[in-house]
Amino acid sequence: MRIEIICTGDEVLTGKIVNTNFSYMSQKLEDAGLSVFWGTTVGDDRDSLLQAFRLAGERADAVIVNGGLGPTVDDLSQEVAAQAGGVDLVLDEEWLARMEAFFTRRSRVMPPNNRKQAMLPAGAEILDNPIGTACGFSMDIGKARFFFTPGVPRELRRMLEEQIIPRLLARSGAPTSIFLKRLHSYGLGESHVDTLLAGVEAMVPDGSVKLGFRAHYPQIETKLTARGTDMGDVRRKLAPVEAAVHERLGNFIVAEDDQTLEGVVLAALTGHQATLAVVETFTAGQIAARIAPLPGAEMIFRRGAVARDRAQLLAAVGRAGAAPDGEFTAEVAAAVAQAARSGADATHALAVLIDLDEGSDRIDLGGTIWVAIATTDDVVCRRARILGGREWIRLGAVELGLDCLRRYLQGLPVAERIDFEKV
Amino acid sequence: MRIEIICTGDEVLTGKIVNTNFSYMSQKLEDAGLSVFWGTTVGDDRDSLLQAFRLAGERADAVIVNGGLGPTVDDLSQEVAAQAGGVDLVLDEEWLARMEAFFTRRSRVMPPNNRKQAMLPAGAEILDNPIGTACGFSMDIGKARFFFTPGVPRELRRMLEEQIIPRLLARSGAPTSIFLKRLHSYGLGESHVDTLLAGVEAMVPDGSVKLGFRAHYPQIETKLTARGTDMGDVRRKLAPVEAAVHERLGNFIVAEDDQTLEGVVLAALTGHQATLAVVETFTAGQIAARIAPLPGAEMIFRRGAVARDRAQLLAAVGRAGAAPDGEFTAEVAAAVAQAARSGADATHALAVLIDLDEGSDRIDLGGTIWVAIATTDDVVCRRARILGGREWIRLGAVELGLDCLRRYLQGLPVAERIDFEKV
Repeated sequence: MRIEIICTGDEVLTGKIVNTNFSYMSQKLEDAGLSVFWGTTVGDDRDSLLQAFRLAGERADAVIVNGGLGPTVDDLSQEVAAQAGGVDLVLDEEWLARMEAFFTRRSRVMPPNNRKQAMLPAGAEILDNPIGTACGFSMDIGKARFFFTPGVPRELRRMLEEQIIPRLLARSGAPTSIFLKRLHSYGLGESHVDTLLAGVEAMVPDGSVKLGFRAHYPQIETKLTARGTDMGDVRRKLAPVEAAVHERLGNFIVAEDDQTLEGVVLAALTGHQATLAVVETFTAGQIAARIAPLPGAEMIFRRGAVARDRAQLLAAVGRAGAAPDGEFTAEVAAAVAQAARSGADATHALAVLIDLDEGSDRIDLGGTIWVAIATTDDVVCRRARILGGREWIRLGAVELGLDCLRRYLQGLPVAERIDFEKV
Repeated sequence: MRIEIICTGDEVLTGKIVNTNFSYMSQKLEDAGLSVFWGTTVGDDRDSLLQAFRLAGERADAVIVNGGLGPTVDDLSQEVAAQAGGVDLVLDEEWLARMEAFFTRRSRVMPPNNRKQAMLPAGAEILDNPIGTACGFSMDIGKARFFFTPGVPRELRRMLEEQIIPRLLARSGAPTSIFLKRLHSYGLGESHVDTLLAGVEAMVPDGSVKLGFRAHYPQIETKLTARGTDMGDVRRKLAPVEAAVHERLGNFIVAEDDQTLEGVVLAALTGHQATLAVVETFTAGQIAARIAPLPGAEMIFRRGAVARDRAQLLAAVGRAGAAPDGEFTAEVAAAVAQAARSGADATHALAVLIDLDEGSDRIDLGGTIWVAIATTDDVVCRRARILGGREWIRLGAVELGLDCLRRYLQGLPVAERIDFEKV
C-alpha cells in the first residue's frame, strides 16, 4: 500500500516549528509494518492544498493529511477536501452537539466560529477525537482514501493509533494484531547491535517479526514489530525473538518499552530502600536533572553537588584539602563518593568526575571519566576515555554514570567495556 | 519567486530522524526575505526522485534538494538529476582533485567509491563545500533552477548561507544586502511582544525592515530582517527600528544574536570578577547545567547544590536544623543563598527553591518559586507562582532564576513582573 503524508500549515512550511508530526506518523506507520512513500508540505493556501490533494489522490492508495481542521479562517482542510472530492460541505449535527457538550463540560459557551469545525465533506466518515474539537474524517479523493487529522500533536497521536492505523491495516489486508516491543540499550554502537542480532528475524520463518533500530546517542532502541492473527499468535511469535535479543544484548539492555534508564535506576533504588547522593564535575548537574525531578524521587534523591574546580569539589563534599592538585584518580573518585554518601547520610553515592583534555572544542577532543559508586561498606570505580568534543563527552558521561549505577544495583559487572570508549 | 524544498533519504521519510534540515532551510530563507511554497519528502528511490524533480521543475522557480550526494549506492541525487535534466553524468576532475587533497590532509587514502561524488550532471555549476566531500551543484531542470545540497547539517548550513541564498537573492531581483538582527527576550508572551512592537515596521516606510517572532518557551526571539542596496544602507534602515525594539522591550531583552542568557550571565560575572554558587531544588541541576559547562566557567562557577528535601537542602549548605518544616519563605531562601555563598567562598550565590503543589502532574498544576541572590553584603528575593505542570514549572524556574541573576548583575530591577506568573 502506497501511503502519502501531507502536512499543512504556514508554521510548518516556514520552519517556525519543526515538523515532528511527520516523523512521528512515519515511524508509527513503520512500527505497524506500513510505510510512507511520499511526503508533501504546503501552507495554508487554497491552491496549494487543492493541488497537493489531487496529486496525492493520483499517486497514493492512502493519504494522511495533518492540520487545517481548526476554527479559524486559515484552516482550510475540510473546504478544500470537499472541493477536491467534488462534494458539498454539510453540517454534521452530531459533531456540533459533541462540541457544544465539550464546551459545556468546561463551563464555557462555544464561540460561533467553532461551528465551522462541524462542517464536513458530504459522505465523509468521522474519525473520533475524544480530546479536542477538531473532527477527524475520512473520504475518497481520486483513487486514494484520505484521512484528515488535527495538527495538535496529542490529538493526532490518539487518532492515528486508535482510528487510522487499524483502518489502514484492514485495507492492506495485513493480519490485524500487531505489537511493538522496544528494548533500549546503552554501550553498543548501532552496527554492533545489528551484527549481534543477525538472524533473529529468521527465527520466525513467515517473516511476521521485523527488526528495526533507532539510534539516539548514546542509547540505541531495538524495535521488534510482530504481526499475527490475534494477540496470542503475536506473543507466540515474538517470545523466542525477544528472548534471543535479551540473551545477545544481555547486560547492555537498560530499559524496555516506555521505561527510561533514570526511571530504572530510581526503581532499583526504591526497591533497595536506598537513598542517593550525586557528585558531578563537567556533567554539571545533568545527572541530577535526570533523576531528581522524577515523581517519587523526593525521598530517594538526597543531595547533588556540582563543582568544576577540584578543590571546590573536595570542599563541597567536606574533604577540603584532602588531595593534592593534578588529575583525578580512582582513589580521589572513591573518596569523593564516600564523602558525598556520608555527608548526605545516603545509602548510595554516585560520583562522575571528568578531566577534560586541554584545548578548544573540536571533534577529537577527549575526556577521561571517573565513575565511583559508594555504599556504607563498598566502593567501586570505573575509568573511561571518550573522544568527540565537549558536548559528546558530557552526554556520554551522564549515560555512563547512570548505567554504572544501574549495573551496580542490578548486581551486574560495572566495568564492562562499551563501544564508545577509547581503550 | 516560488521556492520548493525536496528532502531525500529513507531515514527522513521513515521518521528515523526528525527533519530539522527542512525547518532550518525554510527559516533561513524567510530570514532572507525569501519564502518556500512547497515541500516534498521522498526516499532513496529512483522513481520517486525522478518524479519529485520533474514535478518541482514544473511548478517552482527555484528548488533546493537536500541529501543523496554521498558515496554509497543509495545516494542517487546526481544520477537522477542528470536523467531529469536530460544530460550525461561526467567526471569533474577539479572536484576529484579536491577530494583527494581532502583525504591526504587527513593522512588517509580516498576510498574508490568516493569517486562517485565527483560525477556531476554535464554543465552543472559547482557549489563549494569547504568542509566535506559531497559536491553541491546547481543546474536547470524544467523551468526551475535546482540547487543540490548535502544532508550533513553543518555542510548544508554553510552551503545554503554562502552559496545558495546569495544566488537566490540575485535571481529574485531583491536588493543584495540583507541583515538579520535577533533580540531574545524573557518574561513577555508572544502576543504581548507583538502588541508592544506594533508599528515598528512602519518606521521605515519602504518596507525594507520586516519584523518576525519565534517563540520557544520561555524565551521569545524577535527578528528584524533589513534589506538594502549595501550594508551601510541596511544599517541605516535598521538602526531606528532596533533602537525602538530596545526601548519598548527594555529590561526584558536578555541576549542578542548568538548570545544566550547563560552566556550573558557568565560574561557579567566575569566582568565583575565574580564567582558563583548555585542552590536548586526542583530544577535539580538544570541551572548549573546551563552555566557550568560553558568555556570559561571553570573559574567562575564554584559550586552547585541540589536537594529535593528541605532538611537535606539546608544540610547541603551547612545550615542543618536552621529552619522548621513548612513551605519556603523569603527568609529561608535568603539564608540558603547566603550560606551557599559563604560555603563556596563565592562572591555571588543564586538559590532557586520551589514548592510544588500537591497532586499528580496536570496542565494546571502550580509551583511557588523563590529566587534569592546573595552577595557579601546584600541579598534580594523574588517570589513567583507559575502554573502549567511539572515540566513547565521547571523550565520557567530555570529561566526565572538565570534572568534574576542577569538583572541583578546588570543593575536592573530583579522583581519586575513577567507574563508567565500568576499574581
